[in-house]
Amino acid sequence: LCCLGGGMAAPDPRQRDDLIRREASKQTGGRLPLTAAEQRLDAALLKMKQNETWRADFPPAMHFFRARPLIRTSPIFHLLQKMPKGGALHVHDFSMVDVEWLVKNATYRPHCYMCLTDKRSIRFVFSSRWPKALPRCSPWTLLENLRAKMVNTTDFDDSIMGNMTLFSDQDPEVLYPSQDVVWERFEQAFAALWGLVTYAPVFRDYYYQGLTQFYTDNVMYLELRALLPQTYELDGSTHDTAWTLKTYQEVTKQFTEDHPGFFGARIIFTIQRRVNASVMASTVEEAMKLQSDFPEVMAGFDMVGREDKGRPLWYFRDALSLPAERGVTLPFFFHAGETDLEGTEVDQNLLDALLFNTSRIGHGFALGRHPLAKELSRKRGVAVEVCPISNQVLKLVNDMRNHPAAALMSENHPLVISSDDPAMFGASGLSYDFYEAFVGFGGVRSNLGTLKKLAMNSIRYSSLNAKLQDKALAGWKERWDKFVSENSF
Amino acid sequence: LCCLGGGMAAPDPRQRDDLIRREASKQTGGRLPLTAAEQRLDAALLKMKQNETWRADFPPAMHFFRARPLIRTSPIFHLLQKMPKGGALHVHDFSMVDVEWLVKNATYRPHCYMCLTDKRSIRFVFSSRWPKALPRCSPWTLLENLRAKMVNTTDFDDSIMGNMTLFSDQDPEVLYPSQDVVWERFEQAFAALWGLVTYAPVFRDYYYQGLTQFYTDNVMYLELRALLPQTYELDGSTHDTAWTLKTYQEVTKQFTEDHPGFFGARIIFTIQRRVNASVMASTVEEAMKLQSDFPEVMAGFDMVGREDKGRPLWYFRDALSLPAERGVTLPFFFHAGETDLEGTEVDQNLLDALLFNTSRIGHGFALGRHPLAKELSRKRGVAVEVCPISNQVLKLVNDMRNHPAAALMSENHPLVISSDDPAMFGASGLSYDFYEAFVGFGGVRSNLGTLKKLAMNSIRYSSLNAKLQDKALAGWKERWDKFVSENSF
Ligand SMILES: [Zn+2]
Ligand SMILES: [Zn+2]
Repeated sequence: LCCLGGGMAAPDPRQRDDLIRREASKQTGGRLPLTAAEQRLDAALLKMKQNETWRADFPPAMHFFRARPLIRTSPIFHLLQKMPKGGALHVHDFSMVDVEWLVKNATYRPHCYMCLTDKRSIRFVFSSRWPKALPRCSPWTLLENLRAKMVNTTDFDDSIMGNMTLFSDQDPEVLYPSQDVVWERFEQAFAALWGLVTYAPVFRDYYYQGLTQFYTDNVMYLELRALLPQTYELDGSTHDTAWTLKTYQEVTKQFTEDHPGFFGARIIFTIQRRVNASVMASTVEEAMKLQSDFPEVMAGFDMVGREDKGRPLWYFRDALSLPAERGVTLPFFFHAGETDLEGTEVDQNLLDALLFNTSRIGHGFALGRHPLAKELSRKRGVAVEVCPISNQVLKLVNDMRNHPAAALMSENHPLVISSDDPAMFGASGLSYDFYEAFVGFGGVRSNLGTLKKLAMNSIRYSSLNAKLQDKALAGWKERWDKFVSENSF
Repeated sequence: LCCLGGGMAAPDPRQRDDLIRREASKQTGGRLPLTAAEQRLDAALLKMKQNETWRADFPPAMHFFRARPLIRTSPIFHLLQKMPKGGALHVHDFSMVDVEWLVKNATYRPHCYMCLTDKRSIRFVFSSRWPKALPRCSPWTLLENLRAKMVNTTDFDDSIMGNMTLFSDQDPEVLYPSQDVVWERFEQAFAALWGLVTYAPVFRDYYYQGLTQFYTDNVMYLELRALLPQTYELDGSTHDTAWTLKTYQEVTKQFTEDHPGFFGARIIFTIQRRVNASVMASTVEEAMKLQSDFPEVMAGFDMVGREDKGRPLWYFRDALSLPAERGVTLPFFFHAGETDLEGTEVDQNLLDALLFNTSRIGHGFALGRHPLAKELSRKRGVAVEVCPISNQVLKLVNDMRNHPAAALMSENHPLVISSDDPAMFGASGLSYDFYEAFVGFGGVRSNLGTLKKLAMNSIRYSSLNAKLQDKALAGWKERWDKFVSENSF
């Protein structure tokens, strides 16, 4: 920088090239050396991206619901699907599996009852006896009976599906005109599938199916934010939190045995941020106990729900200080800065998450407006979990090129790409979000090195210990090299 | 930063307060000491902003066309109108004056002819004889005759107005679905008013009226990007560039005499960026001559027109190197980074503008994605001219809270707020853009110190020499103190 012309000299083209190179080298993966094969693949990728950037209907400039069919025909997307992406570090328990599976599989099981609330949202329950009526819901219908009377169940099944996801073929701007409306529908959709996924036999299969979908998308590891709800059996008996956590552990073990190369999954126990201080305190106590009882599968603790409407982290400071006060380990993985409300109490969550020594930051959408929090996140290697499609559907950003992670990526800020609630948004696995990051806010400049670094980040910033990280990285590297050699000509 | 807890200690509330204060102090104006009276005004402002932030129809989250009536009722806006804002450093010649003045004043003058192009855009000419037909335009109509036949001219005048501005009561998303559409209409609107404003008598009055509107909005100084077009008289005779520049100088002098406290205006000579290299070379030659002939009024040189469709700066490198090669002074004030096209040749303009030693950066919308350019801009005090409403209307950003200047403002990056083409966007002066900056991307945290610093920046980063800056700053300070004492109770 010292040597830039003093105005009285025309710029030197070599100096210009040097500046361009230096700026490009600052981006995520900008300093990763690429092998000859990687360079060939990178050149092909650049061409594909240039073609994509100049089309009039540039997918990252559109709402994902409109962009999805275009993305599906993109050669870059097909490459991203095949690419070993490492781990998915920000995914929620009940939005892993596309809703089609829920309808075609779960709702076709025997003893499945459905009712319709006065807000036109559906509710389910499995029961060996006729279930007790729900308040503000129509009388229960046994789906077996109902479907038996239909000539064609396609429309019916489609309407169930539509009730359990935000994705729609209609104009998303009309359907979801404001953050309030889209969050309300988001919460209703979770309530709709709740009775299905908390039925113990479905719970187990749903999770296995979720792992399958990520595995198929070439994701080898998962950190799942999980509410660990009480699950139930057909006779109405229930299982506690420990059972749920143990089931995650068992199914993960089974899946890993069935799928060589899969590296496992860990659980971040979550609770709604709308609870009060005393509920939070007892939940933190419970989390500490789970962390010590299940150190292998428990990764830590977080809060979920709309940040703007929930309580800020600082409200819960006493509860969140418990582990430190007792000298007990409970890693935090706080959602923070998933907000537009700059300068409000909620917007303080970013700095507070860092004060509570969070291991990563969920979303961090507002980080660019917090220079001190940004500096801390960078210096302490607290990675930001960027979930582009989630931010767009939940109306924080329209055009992906304006996503604040563009700035983070241009300066190699510690970050990973994740998908938050893919089934809710009509996505699956990580590839759609990788597409938005790579083609959208990555710009033409982001390259194969960027993708490689993002995949490596997802292992490096995982909750795995150093030894397991090395092992995971070695496994990933093997698959990466295979991917490169199969796709570079 | 050194002392942040190691995870095994609950955060200290005093340390937290300290971090919050340190982060706030990093913002634009964050370190300006405020007098007791300023602190009282600041407290009142904070209350107003909190009220504004929690309303469901938060103006900065909307398109400006919808937000304008809400902004007009905002007490913050009324305060901003009264506030001495310093200088407007990024304003274009033919969008200074609201179109109502053009219709009610210019088109009511005698000898005014109008025709309608096949794209339904209007064209004007003043002429003592019946003017020659324009290609692809209807036959000319003499407005005096046409209006004489009308019972009521209101609808007619309104339709002329609508043709010369982008502003509309209709849904802007429907009217301008893409950047291509809005830029096409933008260029047609300029073509529509061209024949009015290049008529020498109107030209003079238009500029005087433009200064009046900025003065009324408590702007005391202007740097005008001006095409310096050939102007014409009723008999068809024309005036050259030097006449136009001299007229700017004379009218400015007159206006300054008529309006004590007004500090003057300087001209940044501009040319369309779609020209070829040889036209650019001769224009740069002309600019160098004007700069040496009119050193007082000429501030420097720039290019205008849609950056994405025009030629990049580097294409013009030979022409732009002429001043340096000859050892002649010609300050540059380049538009750069008014684009979404990250990583393309056009997106290179930011770095190239800095390589050519630009004095300021027009828009710099993409600066956040260029860490090296950002660093250079900061270190060399090359201020970014942020024009929020322009960026929104021309579809670079939807929700103002996501404007990339939010990050710049949070870290006191050298910047000024300006209005680009207020009349085109239905704005006027600087107050609407100050509103969007202060309430929108400034967030709740930005305060009276921020506003004070923005006003001071507009003098500090002007093209005035040090002595004149001191004088302007002293004049501004006097008005500022008066403003504070009149509005803090
Ligand atoms: Zn989440
Ligand atoms: Zn401009």
